[in-house]
Amino acid sequence: MVTAFILVNARRDAVNETAQALLGLAGVTEVYSTAGEWDLISVVRVKTNDELADLVTNHMLKLEGIVKTQTVIAFRAYSEYDLERMFGLGLE
Amino acid sequence: MVTAFILVNARRDAVNETAQALLGLAGVTEVYSTAGEWDLISVVRVKTNDELADLVTNHMLKLEGIVKTQTVIAFRAYSEYDLERMFGLGLE
Amino acid sequence: MVTAFILVNARRDAVNETAQALLGLAGVTEVYSTAGEWDLISVVRVKTNDELADLVTNHMLKLEGIVKTQTVIAFRAYSEYDLERMFGLGLE
Amino acid sequence: MVTAFILVNARRDAVNETAQALLGLAGVTEVYSTAGEWDLISVVRVKTNDELADLVTNHMLKLEGIVKTQTVIAFRAYSEYDLERMFGLGLE
Amino acid sequence: MVTAFILVNARRDAVNETAQALLGLAGVTEVYSTAGEWDLISVVRVKTNDELADLVTNHMLKLEGIVKTQTVIAFRAYSEYDLERMFGLGLE
Amino acid sequence: MVTAFILVNARRDAVNETAQALLGLAGVTEVYSTAGEWDLISVVRVKTNDELADLVTNHMLKLEGIVKTQTVIAFRAYSEYDLERMFGLGLE
Amino acid sequence: MVTAFILVNARRDAVNETAQALLGLAGVTEVYSTAGEWDLISVVRVKTNDELADLVTNHMLKLEGIVKTQTVIAFRAYSEYDLERMFGLGLE
Amino acid sequence: MVTAFILVNARRDAVNETAQALLGLAGVTEVYSTAGEWDLISVVRVKTNDELADLVTNHMLKLEGIVKTQTVIAFRAYSEYDLERMFGLGLE
Amino acid sequence: MVTAFILVNARRDAVNETAQALLGLAGVTEVYSTAGEWDLISVVRVKTNDELADLVTNHMLKLEGIVKTQTVIAFRAYSEYDLERMFGLGLE
Amino acid sequence: MVTAFILVNARRDAVNETAQALLGLAGVTEVYSTAGEWDLISVVRVKTNDELADLVTNHMLKLEGIVKTQTVIAFRAYSEYDLERMFGLGLE
Repeated sequence: MVTAFILVNARRDAVNETAQALLGLAGVTEVYSTAGEWDLISVVRVKTNDELADLVTNHMLKLEGIVKTQTVIAFRAYSEYDLERMFGLGLE
Repeated sequence: MVTAFILVNARRDAVNETAQALLGLAGVTEVYSTAGEWDLISVVRVKTNDELADLVTNHMLKLEGIVKTQTVIAFRAYSEYDLERMFGLGLE
Repeated sequence: MVTAFILVNARRDAVNETAQALLGLAGVTEVYSTAGEWDLISVVRVKTNDELADLVTNHMLKLEGIVKTQTVIAFRAYSEYDLERMFGLGLE
Repeated sequence: MVTAFILVNARRDAVNETAQALLGLAGVTEVYSTAGEWDLISVVRVKTNDELADLVTNHMLKLEGIVKTQTVIAFRAYSEYDLERMFGLGLE
Repeated sequence: MVTAFILVNARRDAVNETAQALLGLAGVTEVYSTAGEWDLISVVRVKTNDELADLVTNHMLKLEGIVKTQTVIAFRAYSEYDLERMFGLGLE
Repeated sequence: MVTAFILVNARRDAVNETAQALLGLAGVTEVYSTAGEWDLISVVRVKTNDELADLVTNHMLKLEGIVKTQTVIAFRAYSEYDLERMFGLGLE
Repeated sequence: MVTAFILVNARRDAVNETAQALLGLAGVTEVYSTAGEWDLISVVRVKTNDELADLVTNHMLKLEGIVKTQTVIAFRAYSEYDLERMFGLGLE
Repeated sequence: MVTAFILVNARRDAVNETAQALLGLAGVTEVYSTAGEWDLISVVRVKTNDELADLVTNHMLKLEGIVKTQTVIAFRAYSEYDLERMFGLGLE
Repeated sequence: MVTAFILVNARRDAVNETAQALLGLAGVTEVYSTAGEWDLISVVRVKTNDELADLVTNHMLKLEGIVKTQTVIAFRAYSEYDLERMFGLGLE
Repeated sequence: MVTAFILVNARRDAVNETAQALLGLAGVTEVYSTAGEWDLISVVRVKTNDELADLVTNHMLKLEGIVKTQTVIAFRAYSEYDLERMFGLGLE
């Protein structure tokens, strides 16, 4: 599983709508509205780097309410929870 | 539930050890090693802002391998998963 | 009580008007015009993180004179004054 | 009344102690521990710019736990609360 | 006397005109065109913080050639010159 | 006359002493303690760029309390005051 | 051989198209879509600094989907691979 | 294949030695000394994100001459060269 | 002689034309296209600070292809070449 | 000819000495002490990128008074002066 954090600045009048739209994309498991430099952090959990590239470039960046994004890729996950099972990616 | 992302720069020779130490703290559900400006992102899920303050100030900042941290508080979570139940915070 | 500082850049020709408009929002107890990188600092004192999210996203960001904001959440307050009583939030 | 926000980075192992020490200085009415770039925001309410200079330069900067500070002066306050009376500065 | 330095970026084709317009405002004693990040530094010497707020917010920010400003307030002046007398503010 | 603003960060425990030491240097007409990114702004008024280079490099940078400086040269001054006469540089 | 990395921000809705267009330019041997501050890194391998100047200024900067670029020139290459032969530049 | 660019600041007196040491690590195919903010860019081509994590955290960060690094992960490669074959990663 | 480096960002489609236009201005002795944060560095060698102010403000900033500039003034030159004679400024 | 600008921060008490030491290196034609973010700009004019790499890495970075450098490579020079002849690089 590849995890990535997509930091998002949304149009000022469309923060909630953008959060909802992000959540509707396959691979996005959580969206958080945050205090500080960025409006939203969306957590993406997909199977490969290539799926991530496709999600960001072809879907996320084309959402209307998005002004700017920055992708932080996690190259290793440490947890006592079975994240892959919890987010349904270990199957198939 | 209060969610926060703690961005961490660790001592260069102790990145793995710091990730493990962070994971040992109550309230830290995940730690990711990340590419970019920060070495680690740890996800904290606790019940109150005050618990978060206690975790960061009294426990996290005192870990030996930590050089610098920045806390990003999420003030609202959007997800189709029941995060509170998954991470065991809704109970009691 | 959750306290937050909302740093604001206002449209150059509408700094006073924006300060007044911010002060009219429920939860905003003080607005200061400041020297430096930001034009205004507004202090918000509400009961929950969720109320804060609602205030910022649905009301503050939609004020016309606002160009950019950054939210700094305080997760603990130290004071010899009884801030909750003074700002009328301990009641109900 | 002159209001100023003193943004503070404290020594990692002394954030609570520094907050308490700041609160002990005359003129400091509130200290908040905050998420983001700064560890603490302390609010100063004094009578003159000169008193502020004295507080920052001769007292605050000499506290042991302080690593870095930045002062943001408010040159005007908007509030429906009588801040001067509440914080006891209108008297004499 | 309150002294403040107002750092100014002017419209590229109107630097001289903006310098002249700034000099025409009551309270502005000097304007310098400068090398580096800012185009102009104007020095303001007024009697109170409130007068400064009025000058910046109601007059300076409304000048047409101004793109961006940043105010640096001096909270204490050291000089062997009698600045108040030289700039005519000690009187009245 | 060449005017320059020397922005100064001083050692935390020596801000006042550094201001006094700067004021003792020939060519420094004013020193201001300031809020924001820098602790002190000192104004230098000398006859040539070369004198300025000498003052900064050979004298100012060697003061003990100075941590960091940045020099902003003004290449033109606009004022209704006769600054050269006031600061005694037109003579000789 | 001169190697350079051209960091690119592309129009949000045209990242793939811009990557393809960059790859079509003579001298560009690889384009990578990347996480972080930049959308694309393109690697250029040409014979002289002047050829590089021509490629960047006359061709790359004129591609429609490009918003901003930054060129990082390598002045020496270390590799156990024969990069010049592999990328066909040692010939002629 | 996962490609990553590791931007490196080396100790001032050990730039060449650090470049050689980096080149000795399995997975590092090229190292370039560069002009600008970073001293070296090393290109890493490995099979998985996990191998990358291991290389950076357990080997690269422990080299003595390294002061600071930043990892930029490429999530997709565009090239007319068969990079996997050229750098010997398609096999096995 | 006063030397200054004018760092320039030009319109993306007019870098060469802007370089030529800069070179046409009296006082500009060299223009370099550069890699990194800025597109062009132009070197100015004139007789006085005032001439420099005039060149930058009244001529350079009005060129059409220029987006942003930053002036770095040299206050002393060290060289074994007789720069004043070489660039024809010592005469008259 | 390859031209590069090496921006230098020198030890506070050794700016003049560092300027002299830089000037003593083969390939450095001019050194300027500058106002702003950097203490010195040294201009390097050599025959190849490789000579430049050697000069910076093996000689410049090893000078004792140097704290930090940044190299800006010019990939094309525009001038009405015959710079190569003037700085004696066209010969041989």
